[in-house]
Amino acid sequence: MIDFNRHPDSYKHWQLRIDGDVAHLRMNVDPAHPFKPGYELKLNSYDLGVDMELADSIQRLRFEHPNVKVLVIGSAQERAFCAGANIWMLAESTHPFKVNFCKYTNETRLSLEDASQNSGIKSICAVNAACAGGGYELALACDEIHLVNDSNSAVSLPEVPLLGVLPGTGGLTRLVDKRKVRRDRADVFCTMAEGLRGKRALQWGLVDAIWTKSQFAEKVGERARSWAASLPARPAKGIALAPIRAQITDKGFRYQHVEAEVDAARRTATVIVHAPSGPQPKSGADYEAAGCSAWALQCWRELDDAICQLRFGHEEVGLLLLKTRGDRSAILQVEKDLLANRSHWLCREILLQMARTTRRWDLTARSMYALVDGESCAAGAFLELTLGCDRVYALDDERVQFAVGPLADGALPMSHGLTRLQNRFLKDPAQAQKLAKEQPTLSASEADEQGLCTYLLDPIDWEDDVRIAIEERASLSPDALTGMEASLRFGGAETCDSKIFGRLSAWQNWIFTRPNATGDEGALTRYGAPESARFDWRRT
Amino acid sequence: MIDFNRHPDSYKHWQLRIDGDVAHLRMNVDPAHPFKPGYELKLNSYDLGVDMELADSIQRLRFEHPNVKVLVIGSAQERAFCAGANIWMLAESTHPFKVNFCKYTNETRLSLEDASQNSGIKSICAVNAACAGGGYELALACDEIHLVNDSNSAVSLPEVPLLGVLPGTGGLTRLVDKRKVRRDRADVFCTMAEGLRGKRALQWGLVDAIWTKSQFAEKVGERARSWAASLPARPAKGIALAPIRAQITDKGFRYQHVEAEVDAARRTATVIVHAPSGPQPKSGADYEAAGCSAWALQCWRELDDAICQLRFGHEEVGLLLLKTRGDRSAILQVEKDLLANRSHWLCREILLQMARTTRRWDLTARSMYALVDGESCAAGAFLELTLGCDRVYALDDERVQFAVGPLADGALPMSHGLTRLQNRFLKDPAQAQKLAKEQPTLSASEADEQGLCTYLLDPIDWEDDVRIAIEERASLSPDALTGMEASLRFGGAETCDSKIFGRLSAWQNWIFTRPNATGDEGALTRYGAPESARFDWRRT
Repeated sequence: MIDFNRHPDSYKHWQLRIDGDVAHLRMNVDPAHPFKPGYELKLNSYDLGVDMELADSIQRLRFEHPNVKVLVIGSAQERAFCAGANIWMLAESTHPFKVNFCKYTNETRLSLEDASQNSGIKSICAVNAACAGGGYELALACDEIHLVNDSNSAVSLPEVPLLGVLPGTGGLTRLVDKRKVRRDRADVFCTMAEGLRGKRALQWGLVDAIWTKSQFAEKVGERARSWAASLPARPAKGIALAPIRAQITDKGFRYQHVEAEVDAARRTATVIVHAPSGPQPKSGADYEAAGCSAWALQCWRELDDAICQLRFGHEEVGLLLLKTRGDRSAILQVEKDLLANRSHWLCREILLQMARTTRRWDLTARSMYALVDGESCAAGAFLELTLGCDRVYALDDERVQFAVGPLADGALPMSHGLTRLQNRFLKDPAQAQKLAKEQPTLSASEADEQGLCTYLLDPIDWEDDVRIAIEERASLSPDALTGMEASLRFGGAETCDSKIFGRLSAWQNWIFTRPNATGDEGALTRYGAPESARFDWRRT
Repeated sequence: MIDFNRHPDSYKHWQLRIDGDVAHLRMNVDPAHPFKPGYELKLNSYDLGVDMELADSIQRLRFEHPNVKVLVIGSAQERAFCAGANIWMLAESTHPFKVNFCKYTNETRLSLEDASQNSGIKSICAVNAACAGGGYELALACDEIHLVNDSNSAVSLPEVPLLGVLPGTGGLTRLVDKRKVRRDRADVFCTMAEGLRGKRALQWGLVDAIWTKSQFAEKVGERARSWAASLPARPAKGIALAPIRAQITDKGFRYQHVEAEVDAARRTATVIVHAPSGPQPKSGADYEAAGCSAWALQCWRELDDAICQLRFGHEEVGLLLLKTRGDRSAILQVEKDLLANRSHWLCREILLQMARTTRRWDLTARSMYALVDGESCAAGAFLELTLGCDRVYALDDERVQFAVGPLADGALPMSHGLTRLQNRFLKDPAQAQKLAKEQPTLSASEADEQGLCTYLLDPIDWEDDVRIAIEERASLSPDALTGMEASLRFGGAETCDSKIFGRLSAWQNWIFTRPNATGDEGALTRYGAPESARFDWRRT
């Protein structure tokens, strides 16, 4: 299994320093420590291992250093701020790995934006040198970009001219949708290998401030401190995040509240999530005392890890089967308490973690069936996971109950901004509103009548019908299912986030498969080689 | 060159009958007349030639039969309403042809929806038998779907289970975004080869009405007549549409108002559009008298044809160079008169044609540079084409003038619903509003200051700078450019139309290139063969 746990004490590629209410995160990638052997991480280029440390830093700021108001992301290297994703790594990777790597890095950058929008951690990107490709995409995910105004420091998205692929970690979308750079300027910028420097970069809206080299550190520091001073006070003390580690089992792997059972022959994985048991924290102070062991945090961090394990480690698993287990009233009580204490920093952070994990679930390119049987706990946030599935199979049994919880009304939004109820009932918004408001507990047949089930099955049919549905799904083209699910899961609205996953990533996936990029004579394959790429010029 | 002209008198695949204010268009595909030899068009399956006739019918209803209020689309075959796009044709086609074919058919279906929304031509799909894949996608483009309730008549989207590709002619998007079918039901429906019949199809919102076989014709007819009776009166007499034919020239091809000069070595095509000259119609009656020869109709129908010729016939041309020519005041006067007479059916139809052509321009997967020099007419709708380009190169010469015309304020919306000014000035909506309201005429340097130019070039630099820009563009990966342009051209908003082209088509393009669909053992390749497909099961 991949160990996604990282800790600042043992970072190989970043330096995290907390200075009062300002945090400094400096990239200093160790070329000799790639995630997999076979390439060197030169010029602050990154791979999955580097991005795991970045993701870890953002998590630790949220939970361990809630006093931080402003994060300054910089580089400890003089020659390069960041050269982007490592090209040798990309060129050597399989298509599924490339796609999963891009998705993970996209999710990391979205978590940075989520920290700004919802946790009050503003970010400044201090671009002290060349900032290319994924490096500038990281900058685009920050609230402000400051650039040294000299002949060496440029921002660039050179993927199209140099590699024949897209700036696919949100770059194109953030240029025109987030920063609202004029489309023709964006076009010019994305076709210039050398990028733009100084005044032109500022004038075109690619950066927010430029400073001379000698002023740079001081000016960025001043801005960080004054910005922090202008923001409301933040709590002094956080909680420590312990590592999340699964235990290998006969059937797959398990954590404290989450289990995964992998059936390689059927190409399925059953994901079992357990509701809280025993006494749970109620107030913000209780949560601070409980730390990361509280179910509400532990369970969702475990699920987050489990999703990543399945994505990277079990590529042939095409279908996830969700089983919810445990005490309905316990999960609903936890959610009620979290929501009541939402103004407490830690309760808010826990809710945001739940939201990010449910979005990661929605965005997982595997088919997902929820199996709701007599043992199930289709309640609250577990009902959100259920509704995040492509289908809901419910057993028509008196023990089965569905409970809409207090988080269904907006606390756990999807990537395109809608709640899962709004997304489900696009045709009948009043139904979404009614369920979110009344938070009913429903029998299986009532839930079916209210539109929450795809299939309501008699006990006599349950086993066979579910087995056949699983076998049928597992027989279909994995590519066609990925494209179909990406289209059907997100109806109605669209945001910058959902455009990144639905539009930009789809084009990038197409380009990654094309000989013009990854063929023997493709631009990505030939990067750095003496011969330049040869293209099939037919436009599609 | 491909002859896109069709006429009901010589249709091979459809029958168009006008019955007062109701038109009946019946599909009766001749298996022996495929667009290219090599496959049979069985069971009312379609190819490009079949879709050209459909597109022609919609155009003729708009212009030649404006009295029609309701269009009933049916089938003359007992066994099949329509089996969708012909699979043998798809399996044999090159990737660029498949992509261009899908785009053309998408544009045809959008023109049907445009006719409903903007021309008052409501459509009923009368599904008398099996209706699969592209057949159901055509039905989804209609306002209402009526289905025979018997054991043979089903609607289905069997692409995923049978072919390992997507229902890519808008099907997935229209299911959840237009018809707002519940996402889990859409998921089930799109994985069932056999589709759904009768009551279940009605209950799931896949169709709007079901009738017994014996009642069907009568009930659909009744609905059409009563719907037509409820709609406002329409003009009695239309104008005839003459064919659009280009003349082959030394350099490429030319029409009356539009020329295309293809430079195969540089892989560019220069598209030259000419403003009206001589007296033009002013009133609706004038336009009726002028018929299809009026510049405002002829020029845009020619440009529409030229775009299709370039897409299908010049796959290796990667860069379109737009040159506008003619009298600025003449084009602005025509636009002013059209807008003033917008309540006249023909003036409205001409404006809608201009809008569809400019959208086809925006959606063309080729790089586009506008070259605005001393001879240019960057005015009105020609300025829209200019702003639809990826870049605008302007010569800093006193003869150069840009003129924002009266159509810039919403008469020619892009696919995502914004005007080209709104799309350009996402960051500064007030600037878009100001230009649309004031409709200024600007010198080159003023236009540059107002944000309408990408580059303002001195006469001394013009030739070299433009040449280098062209050479640079033509050297880049055509795939990366397609993905980049699709991402940068449409910022901000999103509609069902733009989701079809930006999201659904991108996924379909990816799937089309994957061995799981088009490899030797892929599902599309092996369709109908004794051996079933073999998949690489890794999910991406």
